[in-house]
Amino acid sequence: MRIYLAGPDVFLPDPGAAAAAKKALCVAYGAIGIFPTDPWPPSDPLALAQPRSRAMSIYARNEAHLRDCDALIANLTPFRGPSADAGTVYELGFMRALQRPVLGYSNVARRFTDRTLRSLGDSARQRPDGVWEDADHMSLEDFDLHDNLMIDGGIALSGGALIVRDVSPEQRFTDLIGFEACLAHLMSGAA
Amino acid sequence: MRIYLAGPDVFLPDPGAAAAAKKALCVAYGAIGIFPTDPWPPSDPLALAQPRSRAMSIYARNEAHLRDCDALIANLTPFRGPSADAGTVYELGFMRALQRPVLGYSNVARRFTDRTLRSLGDSARQRPDGVWEDADHMSLEDFDLHDNLMIDGGIALSGGALIVRDVSPEQRFTDLIGFEACLAHLMSGAA
Repeated sequence: MRIYLAGPDVFLPDPGAAAAAKKALCVAYGAIGIFPTDPWPPSDPLALAQPRSRAMSIYARNEAHLRDCDALIANLTPFRGPSADAGTVYELGFMRALQRPVLGYSNVARRFTDRTLRSLGDSARQRPDGVWEDADHMSLEDFDLHDNLMIDGGIALSGGALIVRDVSPEQRFTDLIGFEACLAHLMSGAA
Repeated sequence: MRIYLAGPDVFLPDPGAAAAAKKALCVAYGAIGIFPTDPWPPSDPLALAQPRSRAMSIYARNEAHLRDCDALIANLTPFRGPSADAGTVYELGFMRALQRPVLGYSNVARRFTDRTLRSLGDSARQRPDGVWEDADHMSLEDFDLHDNLMIDGGIALSGGALIVRDVSPEQRFTDLIGFEACLAHLMSGAA
């Protein structure tokens, strides 16, 4: 079982340490963790056909890893806004389209509607029918979910787990208890 | 050609009008536009197998539409943060995984790094090597792209277009010039 380790962990000061910690847990559960920054292919970095730029080269490598993995565990801790990191969300949808198990964890437990309202502050308004809207009169999702319904829905439909718990703010991008719970769920054959 | 019309347009005060405007443009180019809120399947709404909730029902419908479409055009105008709407990004990754053309437009032209720095305000810091980081010491992407590299990269690798232009703030979620440019690109066979 090859598991793609999606998340904003790639932006940590020491992404190599984050990768090593997750990979060690994967090994303990009998799986192989693939971190986005792992080389592709391991033996021939030049096989990335003429990357137009460093960013396109990184994209091509990540997509190759995704297609080569059997499942995905995403760090969905809210990142610079009410939702998860955009690259992580893209990868979650990608893997779900391939009908492979997708799982996720968040180290912030507050619900999506509440997080969005907090980020909007005084600019949020309630319509006469009770629906919240922002300053552009665009409505807020209000389904008591962890994030945008495409995220929660994709995980649910794949049979995966979405583990949500509160971790101290300083540890929220490195705490791996939720990650390990996803791993245990996946490797038990439940996903 | 069935085109999935992804975007935060579903949150507009009158999403039906937004759907109708995009669908009319699709017809003019010889395509069929599918809006996320279109019923699925048209003749039998009960075929959505036992939705656990309204949100799961919406998710299942959107995923069915995605699998049934030949291409996707995403409204990637930044939504409540530096990146595009999370549901839209999920759908973009989903369609790219199926190796179908994905295209996008944004009615805000400012680049991703600049938007992220503005949203961080005084909490952003520059490391000695010049890389920007946020208050959690997590780095910022700095590739002169429109959004997270997974978004720009997926569109580029699919051969799709990413149309970025500045529109007045009040019109940024309804202006369809960028959408039509994507449509023209797709229907010309370039994608």
